[in-house]
Amino acid sequence: MDGLMMEYPLTLAPIFRRAESLFGHKEIVTRRPDKSMHRYTYAAFATRSKQLSVALQHLGIKRGDRVGTLCWNQCEHLEAYFGVPLSGGVLHTINPRLHPSELAYIVNDAQDRALIIDETLLPVLEKFRADVKIKDVIVVEHAAKAPAGMIGYEDLLARADAGAFAYLELDEREAASMCYTSGTTGQPKGVVYSHRALVLHTLGQAAAGPIGIQESDVILPVVPMFHVNAWGLPFTCTMVGATQIFPGPHLDAASLLEGLAREHVTLTAGVPTIWLGLLRALDEQPKAYDLSSLRALVVGGSAAPKSMIRGFEERHGLRVVHAWGMTETTPLGTVSHLMSDLERADPETRFTFRAKQGYAVPFVEIRARNDAAQDVPWDGKSMGELEVRGPWVARAYYQSPESKDRWTTDGWFRTGDIVTIDARGYVDIQDRSKDLIKSGGEWIGSVALENALMAHPAVAEAAVIAIPDEKWSERPLAAIVLRPGKTATAEELRLHLAPNFPKWWLPDAYEFVSEIPKTGVGKFRKTALRARFAAGKESAPAS
Amino acid sequence: MDGLMMEYPLTLAPIFRRAESLFGHKEIVTRRPDKSMHRYTYAAFATRSKQLSVALQHLGIKRGDRVGTLCWNQCEHLEAYFGVPLSGGVLHTINPRLHPSELAYIVNDAQDRALIIDETLLPVLEKFRADVKIKDVIVVEHAAKAPAGMIGYEDLLARADAGAFAYLELDEREAASMCYTSGTTGQPKGVVYSHRALVLHTLGQAAAGPIGIQESDVILPVVPMFHVNAWGLPFTCTMVGATQIFPGPHLDAASLLEGLAREHVTLTAGVPTIWLGLLRALDEQPKAYDLSSLRALVVGGSAAPKSMIRGFEERHGLRVVHAWGMTETTPLGTVSHLMSDLERADPETRFTFRAKQGYAVPFVEIRARNDAAQDVPWDGKSMGELEVRGPWVARAYYQSPESKDRWTTDGWFRTGDIVTIDARGYVDIQDRSKDLIKSGGEWIGSVALENALMAHPAVAEAAVIAIPDEKWSERPLAAIVLRPGKTATAEELRLHLAPNFPKWWLPDAYEFVSEIPKTGVGKFRKTALRARFAAGKESAPAS
Repeated sequence: MDGLMMEYPLTLAPIFRRAESLFGHKEIVTRRPDKSMHRYTYAAFATRSKQLSVALQHLGIKRGDRVGTLCWNQCEHLEAYFGVPLSGGVLHTINPRLHPSELAYIVNDAQDRALIIDETLLPVLEKFRADVKIKDVIVVEHAAKAPAGMIGYEDLLARADAGAFAYLELDEREAASMCYTSGTTGQPKGVVYSHRALVLHTLGQAAAGPIGIQESDVILPVVPMFHVNAWGLPFTCTMVGATQIFPGPHLDAASLLEGLAREHVTLTAGVPTIWLGLLRALDEQPKAYDLSSLRALVVGGSAAPKSMIRGFEERHGLRVVHAWGMTETTPLGTVSHLMSDLERADPETRFTFRAKQGYAVPFVEIRARNDAAQDVPWDGKSMGELEVRGPWVARAYYQSPESKDRWTTDGWFRTGDIVTIDARGYVDIQDRSKDLIKSGGEWIGSVALENALMAHPAVAEAAVIAIPDEKWSERPLAAIVLRPGKTATAEELRLHLAPNFPKWWLPDAYEFVSEIPKTGVGKFRKTALRARFAAGKESAPAS
Repeated sequence: MDGLMMEYPLTLAPIFRRAESLFGHKEIVTRRPDKSMHRYTYAAFATRSKQLSVALQHLGIKRGDRVGTLCWNQCEHLEAYFGVPLSGGVLHTINPRLHPSELAYIVNDAQDRALIIDETLLPVLEKFRADVKIKDVIVVEHAAKAPAGMIGYEDLLARADAGAFAYLELDEREAASMCYTSGTTGQPKGVVYSHRALVLHTLGQAAAGPIGIQESDVILPVVPMFHVNAWGLPFTCTMVGATQIFPGPHLDAASLLEGLAREHVTLTAGVPTIWLGLLRALDEQPKAYDLSSLRALVVGGSAAPKSMIRGFEERHGLRVVHAWGMTETTPLGTVSHLMSDLERADPETRFTFRAKQGYAVPFVEIRARNDAAQDVPWDGKSMGELEVRGPWVARAYYQSPESKDRWTTDGWFRTGDIVTIDARGYVDIQDRSKDLIKSGGEWIGSVALENALMAHPAVAEAAVIAIPDEKWSERPLAAIVLRPGKTATAEELRLHLAPNFPKWWLPDAYEFVSEIPKTGVGKFRKTALRARFAAGKESAPAS
């Protein structure tokens, strides 16, 4: 028996129409490269997005054509978030921090027909321009006019009439946007978001809870708009009419703190590195910024140390909300929200749960499975690879049939994260499967060791990697970056870890290094460390 | 270009699985007919829902078969909300307050194959049992065993093994439940909810805002579970793991207030009549109940008077949230949430906006059109019929091709509500289209007049109807029920209205009556009033 409900496709169009009809008076604010502030209303945003849409069609963008962006978090990027998909195009957000060879690969793989680029990023384009074919390059100008052969963004919009904009009849399963995962091995792989997935993700993100964005919120996404749609925040903010504050290229702690205070930001989101820097700045000048409006700092992208979550709350009264997701999950997967009875628990228990990745949001289903593809129990101890499914989880990578082992035969996505799940359903990441240390047939999680090491007052950064071992197959080695002016010996660090781990988990070696190599998105590049230390200990320990 | 996201149908199954896996420890509480409290956990609810599902399949319920319910707001009804659709059946909730002939019509129209009935409602069944064919009648027993020929609900469950439960591969467009609208004219018409519509409505209802239900909430739905799925609250509560408090058959003010206080309820929902009774009780005994946990009283079903919204807030510190919806809209359509700038306005402005029906929730689109099918401007003055569309709006009634004039040729649902929409998008209902008074070619809204009359201290209830008039075609007449011990003259009431309405809106006559006839769901039955007063004034005014 069929339901008798309207056939109403889940596309970005109703989100855009809602913003235009209800929130025309609300504000969108962008910090420009010269640090000046640009402010306009949702009404202006809507008109300009329509102009962009019409202009792209004039340029010959057809249904399904990819339009790349090399932009910061800025209002023109938001215009592209809606203007491109509403024109029938597919928004392809590109990470300017990747290597030029990766950028060329990505642009060619996606076959970007046009590119919207911020003037400040033209030098990035210069490095791979010769290796790609892009028909139209559209430049968001600041200090200078677009170079010859390129189109000025404002000129493009000025030639288009918003009144000529018409909504297409889009199918909810059509592509709206795409984003490449930047793995530490192999070529980047494209994830293609359907309108339906973005809409459902938006509704999931709007759900009441620690994120639960609403009209009265003022949101500053630090997470880049080229990184999984800035975790979906631009879509959710626009749907509910929240004030949007874009930091542009200025992601240093002082600029962010100044922006959070001045604009009375209520929620911000970014990776742990950003918040570690902010925490340091706040610790140095605890009274310098009025952050009383700030109700949540969402942290994701990699595991946040408990000490950081606790530091923000106990020293500055700020709530860090730990969340987990991936490019392949649009990205919202789990959020570490304390259930109401845990809210009443002692601080140690509360922070232990809040440092976990949390439990699955509605319509994301999770399980963890071992090497034999069996579900591990939800006991908080048994480790397994996290697998997920849901309406905003990828079913394949773009043009990558060779990657199909990332999906199980029964259709779940294999995240590559090694986790435990406790009896309450809270996920706790132990490691990436490729970083897992397999010692004597048992698994050792590098992330727990790293977090424990980074809680030591002398340790700035720690990465734990597997090194080959004849007897145990692999054994852990810790690479340590000390804080400026601080010292620690290998023995001190061993004693620091010993009370909290099985003896066989403790690293066999501690290497003191000046920095941990990182990927374009700030994650540890463990492949580089492994190559360096593969033969065993490189140098005498600092002790 | 296709998105590359999982094919993941939007059905009730993931909501149920989530509740079972995450919220097993949370509580569901029911007040029994003898006023005792029944308490159990989500874990028990999940097991019993599975048993019900298996048992229904044993009884021969096949995909798409309708299973009726004649129940109060009680835990067995929640079990049916999930157990029936997960068995492949279609849950048909029936309003026991309808006339026996309507009940027979509804059961026959839906072809209910089984019926789950609370023991206390067996006398209702008795009155139409001979006119319908129901194969299996399942009785939720309290004081006595099920009558001969009927099945005890507990016996049925005891024979079914939850371990034998298996999820079906349901399509998201399949029917999950149905509900009949009880119009004041014509036969009731069935609205058939798809799994997809219920899921999207649930996500819409969970969105952060004045309703925004989350795990920490304790929800007491006064709105019956036979009335548009208790406005969707059981689905939303179950998805997020909120504590659910069911009042059973006890909807008197004292029982409700006692339940709200004892269970620390955070949000409750019902029609204005219920809250008017509660407000009276609170005014009489302002300190008798600790309602400090209560963050919102959601009111819908018919327009709530501003004086009531203001009375709760100013005299008792309780927030009334005005919402609008219909059986045909699952029902959430608009919610009167103050946008952040209005939150800072003066009290009169705030209450004026909060007494409106509010603005459209995400994915419900609205417009108002006049007799010529032209959109009226959003100016807060121009009246038009409210039309809606969205993924949880009906596209047809069940087996009622003759009702297709309720939909426009471009696919919007004609609500029958005559409204204004202001520049901010707030809807303000002026009248039902059938109750609208057409005087000298202009429209007069009866609802605004009624609300103004009910704000008079001597008036308990007021209904304004059209009576035929030779010169003007129609003119308004007000039927007034005075408060016990109070008096008012027609002239007094006319002077009370005069400052706020055009002169030609003022009723020509005031009839003082002992009660306003009402429908089964407590709305004014204006057809009856019109029949009574059609010939003009019936009696001398009280003045």
